[in-house]
Amino acid sequence: MNRRSSWTLELDRDDDGPLVARIAAAVRADIARGRLRPGQRLPGTRSLAATLETSRGTIVAAYEALAAEGWLRGDPARGTFVAELATDERPRRFAATAGPRSGVPTRPGFELGPPPRAEPPQELTARPYNLAGGLPDPRLVPATALARAYRRALGLSGARLLDYGDPRGHPALREALATMLAERRGLATSTDDVLVTRGSQMALWLIASTLCRPGDRVAVEALCYRAARDAFTAAGAALSPAPIDADGLVVEALAEPMARGELRAVYLTPHHHYPTTVTLAAARRLRLLELARRHRVAIIEDDYDNEFHYEGRPVLPLASVDRSGVVIYIGTLSKVVAPGLRIGYVVAPPPVLERMLIARGLIDRQGDLATEAAVAELMADGELRRHILRARRLYGERRDALCEALEQRLSGALTFSRPRGGMSLWAAVDPSIDLERWEQRALEQGVAVAPGRRFTADDTPIPFLRLGFARHEPGELALAVRRLARALRR
Amino acid sequence: MNRRSSWTLELDRDDDGPLVARIAAAVRADIARGRLRPGQRLPGTRSLAATLETSRGTIVAAYEALAAEGWLRGDPARGTFVAELATDERPRRFAATAGPRSGVPTRPGFELGPPPRAEPPQELTARPYNLAGGLPDPRLVPATALARAYRRALGLSGARLLDYGDPRGHPALREALATMLAERRGLATSTDDVLVTRGSQMALWLIASTLCRPGDRVAVEALCYRAARDAFTAAGAALSPAPIDADGLVVEALAEPMARGELRAVYLTPHHHYPTTVTLAAARRLRLLELARRHRVAIIEDDYDNEFHYEGRPVLPLASVDRSGVVIYIGTLSKVVAPGLRIGYVVAPPPVLERMLIARGLIDRQGDLATEAAVAELMADGELRRHILRARRLYGERRDALCEALEQRLSGALTFSRPRGGMSLWAAVDPSIDLERWEQRALEQGVAVAPGRRFTADDTPIPFLRLGFARHEPGELALAVRRLARALRR
Repeated sequence: MNRRSSWTLELDRDDDGPLVARIAAAVRADIARGRLRPGQRLPGTRSLAATLETSRGTIVAAYEALAAEGWLRGDPARGTFVAELATDERPRRFAATAGPRSGVPTRPGFELGPPPRAEPPQELTARPYNLAGGLPDPRLVPATALARAYRRALGLSGARLLDYGDPRGHPALREALATMLAERRGLATSTDDVLVTRGSQMALWLIASTLCRPGDRVAVEALCYRAARDAFTAAGAALSPAPIDADGLVVEALAEPMARGELRAVYLTPHHHYPTTVTLAAARRLRLLELARRHRVAIIEDDYDNEFHYEGRPVLPLASVDRSGVVIYIGTLSKVVAPGLRIGYVVAPPPVLERMLIARGLIDRQGDLATEAAVAELMADGELRRHILRARRLYGERRDALCEALEQRLSGALTFSRPRGGMSLWAAVDPSIDLERWEQRALEQGVAVAPGRRFTADDTPIPFLRLGFARHEPGELALAVRRLARALRR
Repeated sequence: MNRRSSWTLELDRDDDGPLVARIAAAVRADIARGRLRPGQRLPGTRSLAATLETSRGTIVAAYEALAAEGWLRGDPARGTFVAELATDERPRRFAATAGPRSGVPTRPGFELGPPPRAEPPQELTARPYNLAGGLPDPRLVPATALARAYRRALGLSGARLLDYGDPRGHPALREALATMLAERRGLATSTDDVLVTRGSQMALWLIASTLCRPGDRVAVEALCYRAARDAFTAAGAALSPAPIDADGLVVEALAEPMARGELRAVYLTPHHHYPTTVTLAAARRLRLLELARRHRVAIIEDDYDNEFHYEGRPVLPLASVDRSGVVIYIGTLSKVVAPGLRIGYVVAPPPVLERMLIARGLIDRQGDLATEAAVAELMADGELRRHILRARRLYGERRDALCEALEQRLSGALTFSRPRGGMSLWAAVDPSIDLERWEQRALEQGVAVAPGRRFTADDTPIPFLRLGFARHEPGELALAVRRLARALRR
């Protein structure tokens, strides 16, 4: 037990806290990694103080803290020792006859039933040139500021953030979002009007499962975000694709079905229609709100990339003028900051949020409070707004770079107009081109694009292409377009 | 534009990185918080180098990095200036007639339909003495080590962790979990056999929605975790409560329903039955596996608190000997480390995991990769194992402290045996006591307990009480029991 100690303390040079805490951390780490063994004797306080050129009181304080935590035990006569651990016994088998298996069985021992219509989430980021999604550039994310915010949040209130907490989201983040929505999007909201979700996908699912019963009908734009369609379908709803044109959703087409009581909800992306990026015209906005109010139909407004508008002023959301409580508003930080944060949010009348909270209890209970607290701090100290302004300037330049490269190299194949906002452009493809073949060849060249069929109901092919520009620098975009052109010629 | 600069650089003393990075961070922060305005001139490199007592090359490198990032612009003739921002215009209303609303409408403008049976997630931690849940003590969590792991993970690969990523979970965490399961739980698994979920709740929901169709029947223990029941019910399944006794689930009671093909799945907590903490007997384990194999019924094994076993060796999970692919195994770090991490996991045959992944795409897409990477690091360097051993020793002491306090002050009211494992004890309440009244009075004294009805099908009251001991220190438990006794006397 009373082994001779050959151990020397090595302080973590990355750590800049008070010396007592650094000494304690170093001892803890050495016990954890086995450099200090149970029963081993630590250097005397006097000699360690001399080695570290500090006071003996500092060493005593560190040893006392470690003893209180159970890492060390003191013996007044003999010194300070590493505490014995609770025994770490191996679990036992519950039957001699049933030997262990050699791996997980490859097939289930029960029936799985027919596969669902939805697809598993894809690895979206595997290609060197990813123009397929309207994806942000994760290289722009203020990762260092975020790491610092994590550290501060965990240091200030780690125990609370790692506990069960408010399933509506960290109050500081809800407050920061409410302030942002009031200042930037004309949405007079308070902290309790905001429900933080895991990205907009969880918001969509919570809304779908709250609103829809089997047989309900939901109108969606004829070209639409597939994962949103999947969420409504999974909730049992049938989808009614509604026409779109250069002014967005053709609202008038919904008037009769709404009057006949056939629609439970309308799901749309009015600010930058997904995937064409056109903005819903003002008259149509007012008409949609009026129809919804009169026929008591829910409007699900997905404002997924509000911040990225390059020409003219952006338009406020439908929710900002809805006085009859028909709009359920969805936003997300996935495009604004980073998808990996998984922070989305919903603003809706309180009874709707309460129902969504019940649905959330079934799937997830609460968000990642440490992440939520860290992001709240980035918002409060202006770091997020600064990031948005910078990203918007860069994305605008990238939009221009992509347009120029396409005009230069693919003007015969693609027809498009420069989008005023959003993170991608929508191009008509010369009908004589075999789009699927082109897409495949481009993939072989390391360039991912999104063909029109990804946005249609039932995957009907259409001669259109979506090309994202936000993720790549102008030089990268030029290279990607060169490869796209090469893939077409072959 | 060429304003005279009165700005002085203030380095962040919390930051211990290289000087170039610290200077850049300080300039960025001052631009963000408005201390440096667009167009403002920065000090010359020579004079700033003199102020900071460093080389001019260091300042030049910092300014160049900031210019490349778009924060500064250089003018060879005149110096270095803060770059102009993209304009931050206010969005515009889309109609003059539609004035802004003053707040979120209090009532929805559409029907919500009947409320679901499930309840919203509760704030579990609000009471000073929370003996209601089998909750871990968040004060024991290695929050500082976690903060450091976050920082390292974000520093090394922030852009990747904040991007779209592997929806099955961060590979490093899946590997660490697979290793832990192989070493500690006799489960021969590899990285690809593990699906990381958001706590065990998401695992339960993914399994329920993958397996169950309306009309399917799932057997559950007669006393059972309510949120699990809710997940199966939400997926459309009907529940069959099966009897339990001192050896856990009475497996024989399932033989006939399984032979008749009436059961889709059996959900159970064999290691420490929730809420009574008894362990399923060996013979029953073998019989259950045999019945499931023969009748092709899925067994959902929820091993929520495997690590906390105080007397005798813990028992390996059912999954460790299942060769026929009937077991779907659920684990979680919520009890082991902290609920707020929201890290659970599932091991099942690959086709089952693939289906679960599709369901996950509908609700959440992917986990919090930064958290997953940080936790993987805590596991890889032994910090987690160390935490578990320490928590087990403390929880064992707390179990004893609670038992002693109860025997001393409430021996007439409660009958119980000392649990061999788990984080709570299960006590029979003298039938002459009005349990609901006692519970209410205890709450008024700041002590939350869990009455038996929380665990029965349809909330039937039964004269039992669950008392958690892991969350509080012995002294706190003694105080809580004193208040409980006082609440009973009144």
